[in-house]
Amino acid sequence: MNYTKCWLDYKKLPEEKIRSSYSHPVLLASGEIAETAAKEYQMAMKEMLGESVEVCYEIMEEPSVCMEVDPEYSFPEEKVKNQSEVILNQSFVIYEEEESVIISGRTEEALLQGVFAFLRMVQLDNLWENLPYCCIPSMPLRMMNHWDDMDGSIERGYSGRSFFYDNYEILYNDRTEMYIRLMASIGINAIVINNVNVHEKETYLITDVYLNQVKQYADLFARYGIKLLMSVNFAAPMELGDVPVSDPLDTEVVKWWEKAVAHLYEVIPNFGGFLVKADSEGRPGPFTYGRTHADGANMLAKVLKPYGGIVVWRCFVYNCGQDWRDKKTDRARAAYDHFMDLDGTFDENVILQIKNGPMDFQVREPVSPLFGGLKKTNMMLEVQIAQEYTGQQIDLCYLIPMWKEILAFDTYGEGEGTTVDKVVSGKTYGQTNCGIAGVINTGDDENWTGNDLAAANLYGFGRLAMDTGLTAEEIATEWCRLSLSDSDDVTEVVTPMLCGSWAAYEKYNAPLGIGWMVTPHYHYGPDVDGYEYDRWGTYHRADLHGIGVDRTMKGTGYVSQYNEPWCSIYADMEQCPEELLLFFHHVPYNYRLKTGKTLIQHIYDTHFEGVEEVEKMQQQWATLKGKVPDRAFECVEERFERQLANAKEWRDRVNTYFYRKCGIPDEKNRKIYE
Amino acid sequence: MNYTKCWLDYKKLPEEKIRSSYSHPVLLASGEIAETAAKEYQMAMKEMLGESVEVCYEIMEEPSVCMEVDPEYSFPEEKVKNQSEVILNQSFVIYEEEESVIISGRTEEALLQGVFAFLRMVQLDNLWENLPYCCIPSMPLRMMNHWDDMDGSIERGYSGRSFFYDNYEILYNDRTEMYIRLMASIGINAIVINNVNVHEKETYLITDVYLNQVKQYADLFARYGIKLLMSVNFAAPMELGDVPVSDPLDTEVVKWWEKAVAHLYEVIPNFGGFLVKADSEGRPGPFTYGRTHADGANMLAKVLKPYGGIVVWRCFVYNCGQDWRDKKTDRARAAYDHFMDLDGTFDENVILQIKNGPMDFQVREPVSPLFGGLKKTNMMLEVQIAQEYTGQQIDLCYLIPMWKEILAFDTYGEGEGTTVDKVVSGKTYGQTNCGIAGVINTGDDENWTGNDLAAANLYGFGRLAMDTGLTAEEIATEWCRLSLSDSDDVTEVVTPMLCGSWAAYEKYNAPLGIGWMVTPHYHYGPDVDGYEYDRWGTYHRADLHGIGVDRTMKGTGYVSQYNEPWCSIYADMEQCPEELLLFFHHVPYNYRLKTGKTLIQHIYDTHFEGVEEVEKMQQQWATLKGKVPDRAFECVEERFERQLANAKEWRDRVNTYFYRKCGIPDEKNRKIYE
Repeated sequence: MNYTKCWLDYKKLPEEKIRSSYSHPVLLASGEIAETAAKEYQMAMKEMLGESVEVCYEIMEEPSVCMEVDPEYSFPEEKVKNQSEVILNQSFVIYEEEESVIISGRTEEALLQGVFAFLRMVQLDNLWENLPYCCIPSMPLRMMNHWDDMDGSIERGYSGRSFFYDNYEILYNDRTEMYIRLMASIGINAIVINNVNVHEKETYLITDVYLNQVKQYADLFARYGIKLLMSVNFAAPMELGDVPVSDPLDTEVVKWWEKAVAHLYEVIPNFGGFLVKADSEGRPGPFTYGRTHADGANMLAKVLKPYGGIVVWRCFVYNCGQDWRDKKTDRARAAYDHFMDLDGTFDENVILQIKNGPMDFQVREPVSPLFGGLKKTNMMLEVQIAQEYTGQQIDLCYLIPMWKEILAFDTYGEGEGTTVDKVVSGKTYGQTNCGIAGVINTGDDENWTGNDLAAANLYGFGRLAMDTGLTAEEIATEWCRLSLSDSDDVTEVVTPMLCGSWAAYEKYNAPLGIGWMVTPHYHYGPDVDGYEYDRWGTYHRADLHGIGVDRTMKGTGYVSQYNEPWCSIYADMEQCPEELLLFFHHVPYNYRLKTGKTLIQHIYDTHFEGVEEVEKMQQQWATLKGKVPDRAFECVEERFERQLANAKEWRDRVNTYFYRKCGIPDEKNRKIYE
Repeated sequence: MNYTKCWLDYKKLPEEKIRSSYSHPVLLASGEIAETAAKEYQMAMKEMLGESVEVCYEIMEEPSVCMEVDPEYSFPEEKVKNQSEVILNQSFVIYEEEESVIISGRTEEALLQGVFAFLRMVQLDNLWENLPYCCIPSMPLRMMNHWDDMDGSIERGYSGRSFFYDNYEILYNDRTEMYIRLMASIGINAIVINNVNVHEKETYLITDVYLNQVKQYADLFARYGIKLLMSVNFAAPMELGDVPVSDPLDTEVVKWWEKAVAHLYEVIPNFGGFLVKADSEGRPGPFTYGRTHADGANMLAKVLKPYGGIVVWRCFVYNCGQDWRDKKTDRARAAYDHFMDLDGTFDENVILQIKNGPMDFQVREPVSPLFGGLKKTNMMLEVQIAQEYTGQQIDLCYLIPMWKEILAFDTYGEGEGTTVDKVVSGKTYGQTNCGIAGVINTGDDENWTGNDLAAANLYGFGRLAMDTGLTAEEIATEWCRLSLSDSDDVTEVVTPMLCGSWAAYEKYNAPLGIGWMVTPHYHYGPDVDGYEYDRWGTYHRADLHGIGVDRTMKGTGYVSQYNEPWCSIYADMEQCPEELLLFFHHVPYNYRLKTGKTLIQHIYDTHFEGVEEVEKMQQQWATLKGKVPDRAFECVEERFERQLANAKEWRDRVNTYFYRKCGIPDEKNRKIYE
């Protein structure tokens, strides 16, 4: 089995960087997670020092690295302000005491995080300048969603097959352990191990058919302080039991779930809970029985509550049988329309998981208005680390800048400054069941993520969830130094390349927020009209005069789902942020943008520029030959070739499409095919 | 196992129609096909008379139906003129002698055909007016191509799964026997039992893995006078043997085939030969080794020759990795460009199988120029009974009128009057290895063809191949009377409905010969730009000014592949048949057609009319409730519902697409969505 260690591939430290304390780890805590912390310390130090170190279980005279759990530890006043106990229990501090270093967590989980942080900083050679280092995680829940199916395929997976399943069997091997170490090292504390689309065989995951093997995972995850959750089929009582319905208010249904959950917790006492995609894209749900999503979610929540389990309920609910002729129905409105009226009706252990935008992980979308709407509901932000619409881990698209923008978006939910970050971290409304979820981009490819550079998104997701204050550049540089090379030569190329890649991708993709010009089903490569007459509610409405969807009050009225001032800003073509112009307005090709360019010229220009930027990235990467591991170099080199071909296809198809439609030539007279 | 008997579902004759001779069949021939003829006679008469009849083996005193083989039978002089022995040996005559009827064939095969013809005419109640009835088949080879795969699926199958294979096993049951009776009854004399795309497992069909089961088929087919052929993988020597290449000039390769074929004929002495799709859409072929298609075909032909086998070699060879930007490469040119230079170089037992048009079974294409080009090569016309691009047996599209047009097309190959019919029947150049092949539309659906009315295409293919002089109306009426109801009430509705259905389908499909506005891969339903930027060489080149592909000498030069006067006619926008206008020319939307309408108005009008015609067909069908079998009524009723939805989708998408592109409103102000 081949796999890399990604950012946990610790390199030997230069002699002058080695402190004597490193050789003397002391563990002043007991429990399996504490043992994990010590084990991780040992594994890392073996690589960094070049020799094994013994763990001591009591305080030493000599300088040491002391790992301790201190439930009473008092963080500095200014850091504790407005923080919940839940968050504080995940927090740790690293400080010097004479020549020793103390890593202190309020809990074992926090200690393990402290050890990973310590090791990272030692490897990055920035430990001492950062001490004392106090870490209070930004989000209570930092969750991975796997879209792995039990046949071994991964829905929207771009890096091989599942390492969880093959041919309806559960795998368990040393790759599983490497995986959980990677997850824990970036702060993940919850993982959903199966696809939200729960098919026939996957429905059995919560039964004895698979439960003992799932337990193996749960136990492993637990040793790393991570909860295991599963996606469930809302129709399970019908498919697995002999209950004739799945009505959440039916007592037989409730009894069925009670029994199933009781048994589940008997086998896996530390089980985390359920993720549910209901009434969406063909999945069953409460609508069938005239019930609300609150009825559905609360039913499961009540069943899970005695065991401390949670229900994560997805808000990705919309009509996927739309008629393209219908210009009033607007998919963008769907999540808000479905869930806003239910605010305040969900149980305490229900979390609504809300995609970052109102559509579906396009390269550019406005932020979902639900984050500014819901106030009495637990919320989790869902982003997609897997690059379904953003290059499928062939094209480079570093997503941290996008996620930073989303987190920084001011919803005005409680007046100015109510950023998404504050909403989903619980800081605005005081929730503790909240946070961020990422649809993971891993598979059984040797490098885990297809393109080596796509691992920066995986790493970055965790780091950002732990600390939303980190910049995209800081995360990129950290990842690059840990994963590719510690040399400035490399980071000086890779960091700006990563940080500019989303913008480059956006340039050669669908223009100004309109999205969806992709090959249907596959979602890679251009097909401008691919979804234009389809049933998915994803239209650009281009004609000979202009393009875009009118979502103002004269159009679908979607703008009204935003708090002011956004409602007015988005509704006004002149004020609307231009990167979202076509999402909110149908705009003539000769409309002048703030740059002074016409819309059509902007489309042409950005599409030519996008290709040029890819060519530049490709050239820059070529300079790294010999400076990064050969395997990674070749992998990325090959991806850049495919990306360049893709970017050219996007450029030519989009430009030709619009040139054929409007007949306006490129002012710069570049080649546009007729 | 449920299946209908289609047109072999003989009904009891009214008493006054029964002749005493019917009860006295006499068989004056021996051999297994002759026995089949007698058995078919008995089966049919049991239904038509309501009682069993005994076959007598010598001439009787009483009036009888006498079945005989007479190798010396002399057909009337005017019918024999220019007919080859091969054809005459397939001919039969039915005539009265006193109160008896004599069915006389030159061979057993011919006798069997005579018996089927006799039984059909008795059932249709038109026997006596037709006697003496002399039948000399129009085509020497009347072949079915099955695109069945061994997993049980059928490529481009629209009526269930394969009845030949399931899960890589060969099926044999009473359905197989019903199938071969249906084929023989319409004059089919050769069947290729597997898909031209020969995948891994199917490659083994010619080996001992499957050969004994294939033999069962071959033996059954033989009893009905039908040859069994198989599609083969040109790379079989590499995939099955340890030959490192498949170069047709490599002696190891030749040896491999010699050995394989020798064994094949050892097991199946009456084996018919091979069908080969080479160097096409990813299939292996001689190009890999720098050899020609003649090298490839002749190598196999020489191997098969000692056993009397033939090689049917498909001309569907084109570049399926084209660049949409490239306006010079023209897929329409490909077959002619590949094969024309090879004229005269193919062995006597090689037949080139040429699709009716230069593209791929679109609703409207010009006739392939190869039929007017090749003169020293055996040719077979390939049509698609399966309605891949013509409604997939959901939409009604009776194809006999299309095939009649193709057969009647004057190629001018040997001056005026050199119709495709004459070319592929061998009448023009004197070949005997030639004829017509149809990609069959059957599956394991109860009614064999999905839509009951699609069986008219199956029946009609055979009837037309036997007698290209039959009109589309005659065939439709025959089929309807045999399959649905003998009542005039029914035929008066069904015959015109069938005969107008292709025109109706064409109206709501891609306009004026341009084709390809279908959903990629599936090929059902509209997607105007679906293939426009793809790699398949199938473009419409629509922009804001006009639409169509310039295939004149100023464009791709495709017109030059036709003999005069076609070359000039097609090249001239004013003379070009309008149903093919956009195939040959890029035409402005405001161009006036001969009707006085602009092109764009024609597009709008035909698309509204197409839907209206479907509505009319649907209403007409509704009047047949109770007049045709309920099962058939309901099946077709349900198909018409789907067809109407499809036609509306075509109408709206095509009209909206062009309205958005050119902005010209409908003169009649009907609803076109914006």
